Amino acid sequence: MSSHSAPESVEFRSDMTVELVKSAASDSDVVWAARVSTKGEASLDDVDSDAERARGLINYLMRDRHGTPFEHTSITYFVSAPIFVFREFMRHRIASYNEESGRYRELRPVFYRPDPQRHLVQQGKPGAYEFVAGTAEQYDTTHAQITEACQAAAAAYHNMLAAGVAREVARVVLPVATYSSMYVTMNARALMNFLSLRTKREDSHFPSYPQREIEMVAEQMETLWAELMPITYAAFNSNGRVSP
Amino acid sequence: MSSHSAPESVEFRSDMTVELVKSAASDSDVVWAARVSTKGEASLDDVDSDAERARGLINYLMRDRHGTPFEHTSITYFVSAPIFVFREFMRHRIASYNEESGRYRELRPVFYRPDPQRHLVQQGKPGAYEFVAGTAEQYDTTHAQITEACQAAAAAYHNMLAAGVAREVARVVLPVATYSSMYVTMNARALMNFLSLRTKREDSHFPSYPQREIEMVAEQMETLWAELMPITYAAFNSNGRVSP
Amino acid sequence: MSSHSAPESVEFRSDMTVELVKSAASDSDVVWAARVSTKGEASLDDVDSDAERARGLINYLMRDRHGTPFEHTSITYFVSAPIFVFREFMRHRIASYNEESGRYRELRPVFYRPDPQRHLVQQGKPGAYEFVAGTAEQYDTTHAQITEACQAAAAAYHNMLAAGVAREVARVVLPVATYSSMYVTMNARALMNFLSLRTKREDSHFPSYPQREIEMVAEQMETLWAELMPITYAAFNSNGRVSP
Amino acid sequence: MSSHSAPESVEFRSDMTVELVKSAASDSDVVWAARVSTKGEASLDDVDSDAERARGLINYLMRDRHGTPFEHTSITYFVSAPIFVFREFMRHRIASYNEESGRYRELRPVFYRPDPQRHLVQQGKPGAYEFVAGTAEQYDTTHAQITEACQAAAAAYHNMLAAGVAREVARVVLPVATYSSMYVTMNARALMNFLSLRTKREDSHFPSYPQREIEMVAEQMETLWAELMPITYAAFNSNGRVSP
Repeated sequence: MSSHSAPESVEFRSDMTVELVKSAASDSDVVWAARVSTKGEASLDDVDSDAERARGLINYLMRDRHGTPFEHTSITYFVSAPIFVFREFMRHRIASYNEESGRYRELRPVFYRPDPQRHLVQQGKPGAYEFVAGTAEQYDTTHAQITEACQAAAAAYHNMLAAGVAREVARVVLPVATYSSMYVTMNARALMNFLSLRTKREDSHFPSYPQREIEMVAEQMETLWAELMPITYAAFNSNGRVSP
Repeated sequence: MSSHSAPESVEFRSDMTVELVKSAASDSDVVWAARVSTKGEASLDDVDSDAERARGLINYLMRDRHGTPFEHTSITYFVSAPIFVFREFMRHRIASYNEESGRYRELRPVFYRPDPQRHLVQQGKPGAYEFVAGTAEQYDTTHAQITEACQAAAAAYHNMLAAGVAREVARVVLPVATYSSMYVTMNARALMNFLSLRTKREDSHFPSYPQREIEMVAEQMETLWAELMPITYAAFNSNGRVSP
Repeated sequence: MSSHSAPESVEFRSDMTVELVKSAASDSDVVWAARVSTKGEASLDDVDSDAERARGLINYLMRDRHGTPFEHTSITYFVSAPIFVFREFMRHRIASYNEESGRYRELRPVFYRPDPQRHLVQQGKPGAYEFVAGTAEQYDTTHAQITEACQAAAAAYHNMLAAGVAREVARVVLPVATYSSMYVTMNARALMNFLSLRTKREDSHFPSYPQREIEMVAEQMETLWAELMPITYAAFNSNGRVSP
Repeated sequence: MSSHSAPESVEFRSDMTVELVKSAASDSDVVWAARVSTKGEASLDDVDSDAERARGLINYLMRDRHGTPFEHTSITYFVSAPIFVFREFMRHRIASYNEESGRYRELRPVFYRPDPQRHLVQQGKPGAYEFVAGTAEQYDTTHAQITEACQAAAAAYHNMLAAGVAREVARVVLPVATYSSMYVTMNARALMNFLSLRTKREDSHFPSYPQREIEMVAEQMETLWAELMPITYAAFNSNGRVSP
């Protein structure tokens, strides 16, 4: 049992990792998918075409919520984030997920601890909360309490593993701040739905109040996607970030 | 801030709660749904009919994997279980979920701690693990470590809330052993898929290796469902518990 | 082979049949599903409660597009409509379907022929068509051509069956005007999505341009649903008929 | 109205068109998706790796029905086939579809008429039909009746359009033998489910009885997919063609 990580190796992070693993997604995919309705087989000519000339079509589809032409796309991300972020993420059912398993591997003691920029104090009423910075004392308390609790959890996890207890039992003490890893694959329509709900923007037609940590993931996903489908992305923004 | 629960109120449980909230699910639903293919409108006569005489039909549908007639049913459960169980549960995408929120309410410090019947030691290789009981010493270690880590987590959570830190930040220290509550609604086909994967039975055509804690939830769901659709349930079992 | 229907039995209809087969759907279902997020287990008290006092909550969920609490409901309709309507209907993937089969039964020669109220002439450009009545001559042409073509199709179908040709081959001559029967089960969230796309209303936030015949089905579905969940229905309308 | 196709242009086909439009699907995708459970972030090393060495892993996933690692793939086909084939196709809900529209364009009068190889006579009982060739006379009747009925339908369609009647009304006379075009995008797991149900093979663990015409489409989809993911394809076949 000597191979188990010693509790002193506990690590804290306050950032999220998002990498683009693979994609089959371009603005021209939207064009042929839409044009099959009016052109039939001739829409095959639009495969790999220059979508720039179809900017108006893409904007029309977005505005009038014709969503299906955006589905013939596929984007796969690798995400490393705390479990509480994954819990929210996986409520999105139109996506494919594979995640690191606490049953099949020993989890590394890496935990989320907010950095000083994270607003700590909630104001307002349910459904329309706002967050403000909080005092230095509040930040210090948060920093200290999270540090201490995560170290205690890591130690308990280590001790159970060292005693020969199964990983799936020992892991129950690990906090939702524990980082995990996953792959997620979505099409562009499902991604726009995700972004509309998991980012907070002034220019959104419908308001959203995401927790800041999942928004940090969503922002990186958005940046990577915007490069793949710039015309679709522009239409998404100019139409109030409503998923079509 | 004096309203926050004091850390001494920490509670430990080793059981799972499953209640049937509502249902619209009977064996006769399978009958009319199947018979529309051969009888059209006349299948309306089978609504609320005695399904006993259609036992052969239901068995045939199950055996040859005609799954759609099992979908015109709806079963809603209330489930109280630890977060690590909900994490596995919500990977099932053909279902509707609403769960208690750590953002919108203060979570109660109730934690899962296995009882002495829970086998603690894993043997064998990945994909085909077996669990054995473990020694009394291993049980004591597990009991002590989980108790201590959860109490530390509850105290840290309490201290952050008492300092005015937002619930959604403070909750990051809570372990995946923390109990949560949810409603889940599924149709009988999705439920059979869930049961086939989340229970371990000798008579299963395809092997499954669920974690014991989600199996404890699945077993209760199964018992409640078996009373609603006894003929379908019998056909599910006699055909190797393969979801149609 | 003498049992095959003679072609003279051809029947024409211009209406759609929608019947409510079963349901498990009430406004109070939305209430407990939503309240579990803030009340946890105590939300069980809201099961079968008077939803009238939760009118504000339901309106808030609809307005801010919190859709999941509307999913713990189930509504099953029997629908009899032409194949071209079912073709559009079954593009809605969040639903369960079972339909009469042209492989497993001889289809009855019942066909759709528009009544004089059906506007026959399309004006405007793609994406924003309008329909106007058309002349008496246009109506007569439509009536005559549909009558003749459907009778010819019914005769060909009959002749092939009489010659011993399999139903699944013979049916290829049947027009998309042929009536079929199906059961469809949806939850209230999916139903609102369906209604928002398949009805055309002045008070819709997003425009829709459904074909009149599927709208005739949708209108009957809407009327039946409105009685089951009147508070949800009112909130759907007062919030621009946007599916939450 | 002179632009409408004259009825003499009626065309008959007995084949199906399937083209691979785009794909993001390889055996190595299955490998990293599966390995994240045991290796976490280190599974990124398996992206674009040689899947040959993971043949055993892929076979294990298939055999024990671990389906999610097969989902991080995307395959888009263009399909041209009769409406009655598309009707069956679109019952598969885990896929994205865009199809030629009878509302937005004038449909071309191209119809399906079986070639002499198509078995015309059904024997046996529901659920386990077999087809046998039929006599020359039966083939002649089928050929003649389909030809005549489709020509009559094309003429009626033409006459209504020529009279200024809207396409969406005129098209109701078109038979389900009419060819249409669509794009369909699926992941490999959904594709295997489709293939298991829409092909009839001796080596299938579960029996299927697809209509021959959709099987003709499925066979072409299978051939194209087998080249993209040969190891997965081999595992699918050697494990009874059960969708994992």
